[in-house]
Amino acid sequence: MAKDKKKQPRPKAETPKGFRDYFGADVTERKTMLDRIAAIYHRHGFDPLETSAVETVEALGKFLPDVDRPNAGVFAWQEEAVPGGGSGDWLALRYDLTAPLARVAAQFRNDLPTPYRRYAMGPVWRNEKPGPGRFRQFYQCDADTVGAASVAADAEICAMLADALEAVGIARGDYIVRINNRKVLNGVMEAAQVGADRAEDVLRQIDKFDKVGRDGVLALLTQGRKDDSGAFIDGVGLTPAQAAPVLAFLTSKGDSNAATLDNLRAAVGASAIGAEGVDELADIAALLDAMGVGADRAVIDPSVVRGLGYYTGPVFEAELTFEILDDKGRKRQFGSVAGGGRYDGLVERFTGQKVPATGVSIGVDRLLAALRAKGIAGAEARGPVVVTVMDRDRMSDYQAIAADLRAAGIRAEVYLGNPKNFGNQLKYADKRGAPVAIIQGADEAERGVLQVKDLILGAKIAEHASHEEWKSQPAQTEVARADLVAEVQRILQ
Amino acid sequence: MAKDKKKQPRPKAETPKGFRDYFGADVTERKTMLDRIAAIYHRHGFDPLETSAVETVEALGKFLPDVDRPNAGVFAWQEEAVPGGGSGDWLALRYDLTAPLARVAAQFRNDLPTPYRRYAMGPVWRNEKPGPGRFRQFYQCDADTVGAASVAADAEICAMLADALEAVGIARGDYIVRINNRKVLNGVMEAAQVGADRAEDVLRQIDKFDKVGRDGVLALLTQGRKDDSGAFIDGVGLTPAQAAPVLAFLTSKGDSNAATLDNLRAAVGASAIGAEGVDELADIAALLDAMGVGADRAVIDPSVVRGLGYYTGPVFEAELTFEILDDKGRKRQFGSVAGGGRYDGLVERFTGQKVPATGVSIGVDRLLAALRAKGIAGAEARGPVVVTVMDRDRMSDYQAIAADLRAAGIRAEVYLGNPKNFGNQLKYADKRGAPVAIIQGADEAERGVLQVKDLILGAKIAEHASHEEWKSQPAQTEVARADLVAEVQRILQ
Repeated sequence: MAKDKKKQPRPKAETPKGFRDYFGADVTERKTMLDRIAAIYHRHGFDPLETSAVETVEALGKFLPDVDRPNAGVFAWQEEAVPGGGSGDWLALRYDLTAPLARVAAQFRNDLPTPYRRYAMGPVWRNEKPGPGRFRQFYQCDADTVGAASVAADAEICAMLADALEAVGIARGDYIVRINNRKVLNGVMEAAQVGADRAEDVLRQIDKFDKVGRDGVLALLTQGRKDDSGAFIDGVGLTPAQAAPVLAFLTSKGDSNAATLDNLRAAVGASAIGAEGVDELADIAALLDAMGVGADRAVIDPSVVRGLGYYTGPVFEAELTFEILDDKGRKRQFGSVAGGGRYDGLVERFTGQKVPATGVSIGVDRLLAALRAKGIAGAEARGPVVVTVMDRDRMSDYQAIAADLRAAGIRAEVYLGNPKNFGNQLKYADKRGAPVAIIQGADEAERGVLQVKDLILGAKIAEHASHEEWKSQPAQTEVARADLVAEVQRILQ
Repeated sequence: MAKDKKKQPRPKAETPKGFRDYFGADVTERKTMLDRIAAIYHRHGFDPLETSAVETVEALGKFLPDVDRPNAGVFAWQEEAVPGGGSGDWLALRYDLTAPLARVAAQFRNDLPTPYRRYAMGPVWRNEKPGPGRFRQFYQCDADTVGAASVAADAEICAMLADALEAVGIARGDYIVRINNRKVLNGVMEAAQVGADRAEDVLRQIDKFDKVGRDGVLALLTQGRKDDSGAFIDGVGLTPAQAAPVLAFLTSKGDSNAATLDNLRAAVGASAIGAEGVDELADIAALLDAMGVGADRAVIDPSVVRGLGYYTGPVFEAELTFEILDDKGRKRQFGSVAGGGRYDGLVERFTGQKVPATGVSIGVDRLLAALRAKGIAGAEARGPVVVTVMDRDRMSDYQAIAADLRAAGIRAEVYLGNPKNFGNQLKYADKRGAPVAIIQGADEAERGVLQVKDLILGAKIAEHASHEEWKSQPAQTEVARADLVAEVQRILQ
């Protein structure tokens, strides 16, 4: 048997490729952010829903890139068919929070209130090639209203999104919720006499507006143009008259919602669906106004194109407008942190009935990165007060000291490694990010006092001080045992 | 293609067998409980750790029942080996939070502080036959200290466990943390001259102490006994002299920790490992005392046997001592809600080095059930104030009303379903658990007033009132628009 044992190599202590661990402040910062968002959602009448990580492949559906293998894009496996046990079903990890919502909305349609407002926060999994900053497990944070046909539901979600961004610390003026409507685009297509067969092509060119500008899009919609490399890009082949409504749509953003809506009404011309879309946007603008959400927070903006192909009615996007430095040190706007819109067919796959739904998804990692870039998150990485151990036999005294600090609400711990080398204890305190170390040798215990070492001040002094100054140890104070809690509280303030 | 479409049946809207969804209060009650526990862990210097749900089968190891198939007990699948993509590795969902901790402690051993105190909370998955109340995904909530050989780490975890139980609402006196030590048992085995080959058998009989009592265990340790059905159960075959230390161990619980420790010292006789075990328990008792945790909260108790086979040193268990009614209406103690102890070999599989570790796991679902049984959780299932829609064209007014309530911190929503049938709106408010409904028709709007309907009072009246009383609607009040928030706040108090 010894031979067998030798053959067994030690397992590698590694996460699977594309997965990672989150330590300490990484966990608490995200949690704090999500808690604040949840409080806003809750106040708006949304209920939490937590579905399991595992769904049947059948229920999840294939919303991810469609290929032959059932496990492309998702992590999937087949259960063994065991009597009374495994069913032989294909199971998979959820790849988003919308597919499980669809299943829940269908499964519990007789029990859930209609409309059903729910929020969900949690990890999702993608079986994709991992890359830098791209992981195969990541958080999503969604809020959706299922069963409400009125655009009041969309307006409410836009207002709630603005509230949520402010709740996590994004100042008013540092973000904008931009709102568009797929129906307006459909109206523009009608006005431009573009059929369904070419709508996708037109949408693709519209999406380049930010990069190539008005004239660039005009060329791409008509005869084509040379790109920067000199290569010729074929146009969609519209006539200039056909392209006109599309360009009018793209450049319809005015100084006010009213002006934008006027421009959009002109762009959709006689299209009924287009007029309906503009009316919906007008309703949303009025509802936002009634909810006290001004145009400085949420605005009608026809340049929101992302998602127009997927959604069926209003679409929205939250953008952070403050600037950060990119990898190359150039200033750029932080950009989009949330998006959503109205979609049909959520429950239809299961029941055959169309159920109107609208929702938003916040990019958890992106928003957290924004908070860190603004210095809103990331500051509270303070470790516990570390009670050092000078005398192994007096562990009870040290634990009593820590217990006293904790009773006063102060995060505190006793050093529990080998106490022989005192330098190691201070290194440990440093590694823990401890703001304060407590030291009590036999002599001090006899006198009823302790040394309180201000490690933050100590680190500052160490950076600048001369050897003499350093030796005088201004960051270390002797206090009576009874005064310990007050002294530590003073330092932590 | 139409034929293909027909062949595709509608997917079933169902969770996989053994999985479930958590709605509303189910989610928030668990979250509130875990948040309170996390705050206690954090104050004790423990850091959160969130590992991914997916690990390699190799890293997870086979701590679950060992069989030939790699996916027995766990949900596992093999990645496709794709250049630049899947590695061909077997991946699996974590089945507990300890195996990932072992991997992390090995992977980051040069970066983590030593000792490393961490807590983790999250779902784990078991590929087991589901049963009533037994799900294949459930929460665990663990705290462990890795790299601390001192029993001060064990004492600290016991004290922290007591604090955590009080933090979630279990009153002092309604729980007890009971502490034992595997080394004492080993000492008893030495004193009884029981070799390693029969230790497991003896342990199994000891475990029956609660059921069969002192004489029953004596018989089972020696020649065997008839059970209730008349069947003869073979004994382990010890002599009465050999069985004596075992029985002394089992009945060593005294009126105080000191008395118990004296009895244990007698039970282990001349065994060195036994004496070490008793000394450790004495240290733990002294440390708990120093931390202000009296014997009413944590106590040395040799009857803690569960886990003795698995752990290598101190073991502990938290029991809720209040009575509940079981399925048959009989009173019984609620029982165990947490357990843990000291174990070696956590990191050894990966590095070859023994690293001492100790930890506790709280049974999340059991503790939550206990809180519900005590009426501590489960009360806060109050829905939002529902603003009803009398006039579809005045949606902005209704949204403004809801926004005003929310601005005052009141959970509120506008009814977003089809407003045609007012009865449906009140049914919706009922389904939502709404405490208040707001009603404003055109007439009321003109007069600048609203109807505030106290649905809780209304429900009470409806239970008892005569038709006349009911018609007088004492639960409905007309208030001026400006007084709305104050009136709703009055009702919600």
